[in-house]
Amino acid sequence: MSAAPPRPHPVLAPLLELVGTWEGEGTGDYPTIASFRYRERVVFGQVGRPFLSYEQRTWHPENGTPMHAESGYLRVVPDTMPARIELVLAQPTGLVEVDEGELRDGVLDLVSTAVVATGTATPVDAVRRRLWVEGEVLHVALSMAAGGLPETQHLRSRLRRVTPAG
Amino acid sequence: MSAAPPRPHPVLAPLLELVGTWEGEGTGDYPTIASFRYRERVVFGQVGRPFLSYEQRTWHPENGTPMHAESGYLRVVPDTMPARIELVLAQPTGLVEVDEGELRDGVLDLVSTAVVATGTATPVDAVRRRLWVEGEVLHVALSMAAGGLPETQHLRSRLRRVTPAG
Repeated sequence: MSAAPPRPHPVLAPLLELVGTWEGEGTGDYPTIASFRYRERVVFGQVGRPFLSYEQRTWHPENGTPMHAESGYLRVVPDTMPARIELVLAQPTGLVEVDEGELRDGVLDLVSTAVVATGTATPVDAVRRRLWVEGEVLHVALSMAAGGLPETQHLRSRLRRVTPAG
Repeated sequence: MSAAPPRPHPVLAPLLELVGTWEGEGTGDYPTIASFRYRERVVFGQVGRPFLSYEQRTWHPENGTPMHAESGYLRVVPDTMPARIELVLAQPTGLVEVDEGELRDGVLDLVSTAVVATGTATPVDAVRRRLWVEGEVLHVALSMAAGGLPETQHLRSRLRRVTPAG
């Protein structure tokens, strides 16, 4: 229903470096579980509106079975410097998340203002996400407070750009 | 990274009719805005895990410019009859939504347990979503409480299946 990708909305200027598809590997740790590795793909898209779409999936690094997924949207608060950023997303584990923060010195640093679980999901108390691009590498770091534990490092991945910069 | 679509997870049996891509038209109404029409595409996907992915986009019916979007996941609570269903989703308007309900007599009837907005988003107090399939048509109805108004009919669309049943 849509033709060629439209020109990005001007408010997205601080985040344009993210647009595209990124793939790589990551590691997961948490005091309550065994450490694990994963393959990850992240896609940031734009359709000319003042937000980026965000889709993430992970797979087992050896057998390729699907592991995690999440999807949502990044918003830029107009006329803010450093740019204020909002992230809304959903996870098939039965969670939704609202994160807010800013892009400062090239690092997108977001902290949850709300993490809400469905009636049957395992709740999470808080999440902090940091993303930054170095050359053709997107770094992703996520720490989490859950199960009575304070904010603790949980996920760390390094992804390579697999589509041309947007 | 994944090959052919895997066999659906058994817990998804009550929702398999939804899997695929649906397209059609809808109308929007609310006491505070002018009525509008839209083209809509909805995709329900599965990757062998116990959830369906959900992606929705709408476009202006005449000029094709993107309007709304939302994405998230549908979960089935195992061993429930009628099937208890949970929906988590995010919207680029800066909202996340947790809906819960059940599939009864072919109608998926979900009511929000939480709608959370980012700091700059326009809040919504409550949402009710109903989806049902009649032959090759997916019916979508959404009512909403916002701006001090009680739950009021907001969106109504009829979508035709454009991919073979999953």
